[in-house]
Amino acid sequence: MLYLIGLGLADETDVTVKGLELIKKAERVYLEAYTSILLVDTKRLEAYYDRPIIVADREMVESSSDEILAEADTSDIAFLVVGDPFGATTHTDLVLRARALKIPVQSIHNASIMSAVGATGLQLYNFGQTVSMVFFTDTWKPASFYDRLKENHQIGLHSLILLDIKVKEQSLANLARGRKVYEPPRYMTVAQCASQMLETEEGKGEGICGAQALAVGVARLGATDQKMVAGTLKQLSEIDLGPPLHSLVLLGGRTHYLERDYIREFAIDVAIFDTVWREFYAGES
Amino acid sequence: MLYLIGLGLADETDVTVKGLELIKKAERVYLEAYTSILLVDTKRLEAYYDRPIIVADREMVESSSDEILAEADTSDIAFLVVGDPFGATTHTDLVLRARALKIPVQSIHNASIMSAVGATGLQLYNFGQTVSMVFFTDTWKPASFYDRLKENHQIGLHSLILLDIKVKEQSLANLARGRKVYEPPRYMTVAQCASQMLETEEGKGEGICGAQALAVGVARLGATDQKMVAGTLKQLSEIDLGPPLHSLVLLGGRTHYLERDYIREFAIDVAIFDTVWREFYAGES
Repeated sequence: MLYLIGLGLADETDVTVKGLELIKKAERVYLEAYTSILLVDTKRLEAYYDRPIIVADREMVESSSDEILAEADTSDIAFLVVGDPFGATTHTDLVLRARALKIPVQSIHNASIMSAVGATGLQLYNFGQTVSMVFFTDTWKPASFYDRLKENHQIGLHSLILLDIKVKEQSLANLARGRKVYEPPRYMTVAQCASQMLETEEGKGEGICGAQALAVGVARLGATDQKMVAGTLKQLSEIDLGPPLHSLVLLGGRTHYLERDYIREFAIDVAIFDTVWREFYAGES
Repeated sequence: MLYLIGLGLADETDVTVKGLELIKKAERVYLEAYTSILLVDTKRLEAYYDRPIIVADREMVESSSDEILAEADTSDIAFLVVGDPFGATTHTDLVLRARALKIPVQSIHNASIMSAVGATGLQLYNFGQTVSMVFFTDTWKPASFYDRLKENHQIGLHSLILLDIKVKEQSLANLARGRKVYEPPRYMTVAQCASQMLETEEGKGEGICGAQALAVGVARLGATDQKMVAGTLKQLSEIDLGPPLHSLVLLGGRTHYLERDYIREFAIDVAIFDTVWREFYAGES
C-alpha cells in the first residue's frame, strides 16, 4: 500500500494520530520537500517518528517514482506531504503511476493552507480560485496570475495567493554545466509578493491589485508565532513578517462587514484601513 | 485559553497529535455537532479521549456562547469542530465573542472537505467559490446557488457543493407550539443534490447544471469506505452512495485532460462519460 500522509502546517505534532501510526509501521518513509516545508527540520521529524526519512526532491518524485513505489504491492510505503497530500499536482501523478502498477493507495488528509486560511476570519465561501505567485526575475515576470485575480475580482471574491519557494534549485550557470551545486533555499515573503503585484498592476492598469487594494498577509499559519496583518498592498509591500512560510489574501468586493470586523483587529494602521474601506469597499458588501 | 480543535473528516484517529493532547488536558470539552458530523458517534470519541463531551447544538453556540467561554480566561476549554475549525461562519462569531472578553484563542487546524476534495484528482487551483445546497421543500426552493455555479461556470472552474444536514431540527408544528421534540437527523445525498440541480436548471434554462453536465459524487471522504463516482447529473440523480456525508463537484470547462484521466477511472459508465466529455468538454480544456 502507498500511504499519502498529510503532515499539516507547522510542526511534528500536527500529524494526525492515524498518520503517525502508519508512519511508524511503514517499510520506507519519504518526505516531499519541494512544494512546501514544515517549520521544523527533518531531523526533528525523524526523532519524533523514530524512523529514518528519505527526502524526496522534485526530480525523484517526477522522474523516479518507480523507485518510491518499489515493493509497495507487498509492503507499506509512507509518502509524507506538508499540508494535505492533494495540494500539489505532482502527487496526482504519483497516484496515477501507482494505479498503473496496481498498487493500492490511501490518503490521510490534514490541514492545508487552502482551508486553514479561514483563520484570517475571511469566509471560505467567499474565496475564488487560488493563485500562485512565482519569483520575478529581470527578464521573466509572468502576469498570468493577474488574469486569475481579475476573474475573482469581477465576482467580488477573495483570492488566496500561494507564494513561491525555491528549494534545491541550480543557478543557470550550474545547470548549463551540469554541476549539481544548489542555491540556498528561498521563500517568497508577503512584501515581495505585494511588490510584484504592484509592479504588474502598473503595467496592466486595470485596477485589480493597486496600492490601495486591501489584503491580509499571513505568516507561519498554525504555528504558535503565526502572524496576520491587514492593510493596503502598499503597506504590505513594506512589511516584515519574519521567517517563512508566507501567504497573501487579496480582499474581494463582497467582503462582509463581519469579515471586516475580524481583520480590522490586525490592521497595520486602523485609520488607513478604515479610510480605504469606506472609499473602496463599503458600498459593495 | 479557548482551543478550537479540528477533528478531521472520518473517525477518532483523524485528530492531530497536538489536538489530542490539548483535549486530554482541557477543563471542558465541547463538540459542535450541527454543521457537520464525524462518521463515528460521540461515545466512541469520549472513550478515545477518556473525557466527557458536551454536545453543543446551534442554539448553545449562537445564544449561549458565554456559557462555553466561562472561566476560559483561567482554564483551558476545548471546542471541537469536525473538519477544520474555520469551515463554518458560526465559529468566527465565537472567536469574536472570546476576543471581546479578552480570552486568548488558539486554533488547531485539520483536514477540511474544502481541501481534501483534491482527492478526487480535480486540482484545487481549478475550483471557484464553494456553494451550499439546502433541502428543498414544496414551497421553498432557493436558487441562489445557481448564480454562484454560473459565476464559476463562466470562468471554467469546478464548484464544490456542500450538502445540507439537519440535526436536532423541530417540525413547524412543534416549533409553533414550543415543543422541544426533534426530527430524526437528515443528511442530503448526492442523488438528492443532483435532482435539485436538475430541477433548478429546468426553471432557469441557462445550461449551468443540466442532465448532461459532468460531476463527481463523493461519499465519506477520508474513511476507508469512501466512494467517488463520476458521471452526468442525470446519472448521479439516480445513484446510491450509501451513508453520509456526501458532497458533489460540478466540473468546470477548464478541466485538464489529466484531471479527466483521474476521474474517468471511477466513471459510472465509461462510454457515457467519454461521449459527454467529447461533446461538451474536450474543446475547452
